[in-house]
Amino acid sequence: MPRKALRIGMIGYGFMGRAHSNAYRKVNNFFDLEYVPVLQAVCGRNAEKTRAFAETWGYASTERDWKKLIARDDIDAVDICVPNDLHMEIAIAAARAGKAILCEKPLARTTKEGEAMVKAVEKAKVPNTVWYNYRRVPAVSLIQQVVAKGTLGKIFHYRANFLQDWTINPDVPQGGAGTWRLDVDAAGSGVTGDLLAHCVDTALWINGSISSLTAMTETFVKKRKHADTGKVQEVGIDDAAGVLCRFGNGSLGMFESTRYARGHKALYTLEINGEHGSLAWNLHDLNYVQFFDHKTEGRMRGWTSILVTDGEHPYLGRWWVPGLSIGYEHSFIHQLADFLEGLSTGKPAAPTFRDALETTRVCDAIIKSGKSQKWVTL
Amino acid sequence: MPRKALRIGMIGYGFMGRAHSNAYRKVNNFFDLEYVPVLQAVCGRNAEKTRAFAETWGYASTERDWKKLIARDDIDAVDICVPNDLHMEIAIAAARAGKAILCEKPLARTTKEGEAMVKAVEKAKVPNTVWYNYRRVPAVSLIQQVVAKGTLGKIFHYRANFLQDWTINPDVPQGGAGTWRLDVDAAGSGVTGDLLAHCVDTALWINGSISSLTAMTETFVKKRKHADTGKVQEVGIDDAAGVLCRFGNGSLGMFESTRYARGHKALYTLEINGEHGSLAWNLHDLNYVQFFDHKTEGRMRGWTSILVTDGEHPYLGRWWVPGLSIGYEHSFIHQLADFLEGLSTGKPAAPTFRDALETTRVCDAIIKSGKSQKWVTL
Amino acid sequence: MPRKALRIGMIGYGFMGRAHSNAYRKVNNFFDLEYVPVLQAVCGRNAEKTRAFAETWGYASTERDWKKLIARDDIDAVDICVPNDLHMEIAIAAARAGKAILCEKPLARTTKEGEAMVKAVEKAKVPNTVWYNYRRVPAVSLIQQVVAKGTLGKIFHYRANFLQDWTINPDVPQGGAGTWRLDVDAAGSGVTGDLLAHCVDTALWINGSISSLTAMTETFVKKRKHADTGKVQEVGIDDAAGVLCRFGNGSLGMFESTRYARGHKALYTLEINGEHGSLAWNLHDLNYVQFFDHKTEGRMRGWTSILVTDGEHPYLGRWWVPGLSIGYEHSFIHQLADFLEGLSTGKPAAPTFRDALETTRVCDAIIKSGKSQKWVTL
Amino acid sequence: MPRKALRIGMIGYGFMGRAHSNAYRKVNNFFDLEYVPVLQAVCGRNAEKTRAFAETWGYASTERDWKKLIARDDIDAVDICVPNDLHMEIAIAAARAGKAILCEKPLARTTKEGEAMVKAVEKAKVPNTVWYNYRRVPAVSLIQQVVAKGTLGKIFHYRANFLQDWTINPDVPQGGAGTWRLDVDAAGSGVTGDLLAHCVDTALWINGSISSLTAMTETFVKKRKHADTGKVQEVGIDDAAGVLCRFGNGSLGMFESTRYARGHKALYTLEINGEHGSLAWNLHDLNYVQFFDHKTEGRMRGWTSILVTDGEHPYLGRWWVPGLSIGYEHSFIHQLADFLEGLSTGKPAAPTFRDALETTRVCDAIIKSGKSQKWVTL
Repeated sequence: MPRKALRIGMIGYGFMGRAHSNAYRKVNNFFDLEYVPVLQAVCGRNAEKTRAFAETWGYASTERDWKKLIARDDIDAVDICVPNDLHMEIAIAAARAGKAILCEKPLARTTKEGEAMVKAVEKAKVPNTVWYNYRRVPAVSLIQQVVAKGTLGKIFHYRANFLQDWTINPDVPQGGAGTWRLDVDAAGSGVTGDLLAHCVDTALWINGSISSLTAMTETFVKKRKHADTGKVQEVGIDDAAGVLCRFGNGSLGMFESTRYARGHKALYTLEINGEHGSLAWNLHDLNYVQFFDHKTEGRMRGWTSILVTDGEHPYLGRWWVPGLSIGYEHSFIHQLADFLEGLSTGKPAAPTFRDALETTRVCDAIIKSGKSQKWVTL
Repeated sequence: MPRKALRIGMIGYGFMGRAHSNAYRKVNNFFDLEYVPVLQAVCGRNAEKTRAFAETWGYASTERDWKKLIARDDIDAVDICVPNDLHMEIAIAAARAGKAILCEKPLARTTKEGEAMVKAVEKAKVPNTVWYNYRRVPAVSLIQQVVAKGTLGKIFHYRANFLQDWTINPDVPQGGAGTWRLDVDAAGSGVTGDLLAHCVDTALWINGSISSLTAMTETFVKKRKHADTGKVQEVGIDDAAGVLCRFGNGSLGMFESTRYARGHKALYTLEINGEHGSLAWNLHDLNYVQFFDHKTEGRMRGWTSILVTDGEHPYLGRWWVPGLSIGYEHSFIHQLADFLEGLSTGKPAAPTFRDALETTRVCDAIIKSGKSQKWVTL
Repeated sequence: MPRKALRIGMIGYGFMGRAHSNAYRKVNNFFDLEYVPVLQAVCGRNAEKTRAFAETWGYASTERDWKKLIARDDIDAVDICVPNDLHMEIAIAAARAGKAILCEKPLARTTKEGEAMVKAVEKAKVPNTVWYNYRRVPAVSLIQQVVAKGTLGKIFHYRANFLQDWTINPDVPQGGAGTWRLDVDAAGSGVTGDLLAHCVDTALWINGSISSLTAMTETFVKKRKHADTGKVQEVGIDDAAGVLCRFGNGSLGMFESTRYARGHKALYTLEINGEHGSLAWNLHDLNYVQFFDHKTEGRMRGWTSILVTDGEHPYLGRWWVPGLSIGYEHSFIHQLADFLEGLSTGKPAAPTFRDALETTRVCDAIIKSGKSQKWVTL
Repeated sequence: MPRKALRIGMIGYGFMGRAHSNAYRKVNNFFDLEYVPVLQAVCGRNAEKTRAFAETWGYASTERDWKKLIARDDIDAVDICVPNDLHMEIAIAAARAGKAILCEKPLARTTKEGEAMVKAVEKAKVPNTVWYNYRRVPAVSLIQQVVAKGTLGKIFHYRANFLQDWTINPDVPQGGAGTWRLDVDAAGSGVTGDLLAHCVDTALWINGSISSLTAMTETFVKKRKHADTGKVQEVGIDDAAGVLCRFGNGSLGMFESTRYARGHKALYTLEINGEHGSLAWNLHDLNYVQFFDHKTEGRMRGWTSILVTDGEHPYLGRWWVPGLSIGYEHSFIHQLADFLEGLSTGKPAAPTFRDALETTRVCDAIIKSGKSQKWVTL
């Protein structure tokens, strides 16, 4: 088919800048799409690092001021890969400039910021999405499809954890390039916005809305040196959070996230239990779905470990052959493929800013309940 | 060594009656002990079933009235294996009669009942224990020893679940022989006293006291036929419970229990995360401990799956050879061996009634918080 | 039902003496059987140890000479738990004396010895069995039933390994109480008769006869001190063996056994692949069967991990409740239950001496091929 | 650093053509290298498909005749991704034309062909490599490094399997685009050259040379329709192969490969057992290494599951962050990075044609022994 270029202006060049750039470069090798991303410009405050990034990834030009990037006529879409405190301002400006927007998650630091962003993109009618990439891990997509089909019957339980261990050392600073996620001003919150947000996004997608919740939050290391000021300052983020909640469908939810679970690097796990069966998944074994089907003959019932690498599994027909695994980065490629497909069909791929605002609402409620020690109704 | 008989009077002949009887019959085949249990009498309301049980297990006599059993001079120890609503009355009477008491868990339906029981056994100075058998699964014992030694350093997280799926069918009755656990009058509570009580007992043993908690409880099937009355009645038990809590040592706890997690038969799992490492275990693979040791060289770090069947592992020197597994029933034999050893040494084996009362206190707080939707301080 | 006593005369009091005694003591607590084993006498060369064993297990009397034991009128069945070099002589004498015989595996050191034993028991028409206990691990029994039903269709592959690591240290002696298995005179062979024999027995049972094979055998530690002579002598056993074979049904077989696989304590694994599915099992996780069912809908296909603890699984209705595991020792109890049932019905439970002779024939061929480096037709 | 272009001429556009093209496009995004592959031309017999492939992957031009491709001055390196029967002719021609050569495995159909190829590249002194990509799965690289360091001590056992199930259906044809691997003329052999060759390559790399072997081979489906002729013809390949062997270091080896193991898609497994420990890996969980370290304190010993995703693991510093997995395709990128690095340093990255010839020699011996039923000395 005739191709259309989608000229990308990337703002930020960190971990996510790399993951998204990789997606832009690969998507058309594997998916038949009308749109072809073109790496037009990357923007960063440090000129040298920005140029190096541009060279590595093949961006045609660089900018130091995101406002200039947004003002450029040769940019169709803006990708926001900067700390959370800049999401709102950039997104609103990009919307006003009529750019499509691909924003790294979480949408914003607060519901209030998020609402302003939704308003801006909806007013400007620009295509928009938030990179909740784990929806597009094929195993997670499969789970969503199976649940949506009703295979599990009435749902009783949904539980998800996101466990890491990288901030146990009290010498890890807050603020700065790799550690802005520990600075409450930059990040908005700690594990809640960074990790639980993923769990919440997937849960809302698979199991529907959350009606009420109560939470416990904790900051284990109370003070850390700030990378910008060089001073030891109070830590404002949540190091760990536990949540009890009720979903609109009557099921119970439990969520936990922490950066103090020694031995778990990026262990996002989820499990859903229904009347007729259960499904489970974890990010460390991301190509597997665990499925318990109660309808199987009694003696042969058990948890089936499905290696999600066959052609008939979501997205897998585009990759290799059965048994050969894909990894973390592919989730971004899949989300991008769906986003580009949405540009062609006019049916926006979820999660849009509006979808992602729901997750931010839940995260806000978690932080609020962690402080008030009370249940919050959503 | 010269042996002393401990003449057992068993009250009840259900699932636990079998598990305990098996322990009495086997303990001296595997452990060198001064005391030898003698199966003197079993007591049950149904004469025929009681006689059949006595024949199968080799009890020398039967009784139909537990008061008569307690009054017998040829009984040294009473084993209480009846529904929870009878624990208090029997235990107080047995204590007054000077009998040693081995009571099935939970200690009682409520803290108030439990306090009366503790008072009675302490006043009578009779040996007493509650069958929280999972402490004596060798893998769990090993975890307790490793944590007590300080190997994990400061503890951040403790989490435990006990998941089952046997009451999803609404046709399961409440009350009656196999289903009294669904009748709130007989059981006191649902999954909290039945399943979470195990999780709480182990947690208190390994990680110390719980200082505050909040809980969510739910009854999915609101009405069930009662096996005694034949009428469809409101269900008073909790079908599922989720708990957030704080331990005295500053760590956070999360607990969950349900009988609606399709695919999990008796999945008791626990995990503890500390500064220097983590430990985990589950009842479906009861001979394994999972251990993450952060002190291992970086490139070779990971979760070690320890098959707890070597001679140097707790209790295992008494059984077979490395690699050959033991099962569920052995936890009772180990608890009994420790109890009998305690009779010889005069150092009572935990958990005593007083130890088990703490677990009941926590369970009461869970039920209370589930209703009030508020945090409870313990 | 009215009970009949089966008075047991046990010869030997080692590891297997304990495992069998435990079975005799427990079988009637869990199985409804006409026959009740009575522990009449135990025989051993060391009078003190024999008496201690008798006291621990409740044997009514002791003997030092197995011929005297066999001559006793109050013994109905002889259990042979001594090193392999004594199996033939004792079994033939016991058969002549009209005793039922339960012989520890392997049947004999050689096919020739085994043939004499089969001849003796068949001539005397005495009930006889060989303790290939792993057939009665419920998960293995389930596999046999599923294969026999034809669920897997045409069979292509059968593979089994038995891996241990306890003789890597060259200071382990040959000969003597715990180490006679390293003495070729006592044992007949090394891993082949000790470990591979189990794999072969199960394979013949599940997958039918073996028609030809070739093998590789190795002795890693060439000389060891002999516990009896105190001298360093050449080692005559096979430390490791690998086998390629063809089954009568056209499928290919691979077997391996070693005592030099660091990290594996008693890892007996088996897997069978057929047209419509596959089944696998291992002894370290003995309550699980792994099942791949190709008839499942494509997207949900995978390996199902079946926790074999439900009432409808083989033997499990006799034990606890779903999810609660049994262990190694239960396989002996199950074999004994089947043997006793066979006494009542007149239908002998497999494996009889004749069945076990086939395994010995295969083991002999393995040793022979290991030496000749040629294929052997069976 | 200043970059040098390496202009690639790709011959073939199948599964491997895609995997290699992906590597060429990605390698410089992740690795700092002097050389930059440029996708200059792709060659295929079907003009339309070749053009489509060129468009998808960004090849600058197409060719229909590989001889023309080789004759082009603007090609620096030739990548051979065609069926095995064309490897020799193309490689020799490319060597004569002074091109660097990257040849898909196996090197050739036979040792004789392979020898001619080695002679050609060594005479022409052109850089050369064979795509035995599994060496560059980071977990496999880690195993090689640990073994090379001597951590396991004396090696006793090496075992590897490669199990698939895609040819069970007798309607799968031989010959043709996706199924030339079933045609003995095109492929040279069946599972031996296709799958076992990988196992052998890795084994020789990790555990050294194989000195002798015996094998069993089988063709389960004796006749299949040929995609080219349309006729049902005898099948000449091996559907399954089992191998017993001895390594130069005194250890024993067992290998198995089949396309008839229902439930296994691409299950390449390997395990090595030494005096002080063991290591294992499988392709379905390719980011994990299993390690048993006998030097750990006794009670805490076990198999450690190492998630190979940390910065200090081989190649992983180039990718994402700890816990985030990579997949199958990355092994090709790593091999390419090493090959390009070798061009800069002048130290060729293994496996070269000469290295790969050893694997072909072993594969030839397997096929020979499968026919002769005799041990073959290498």
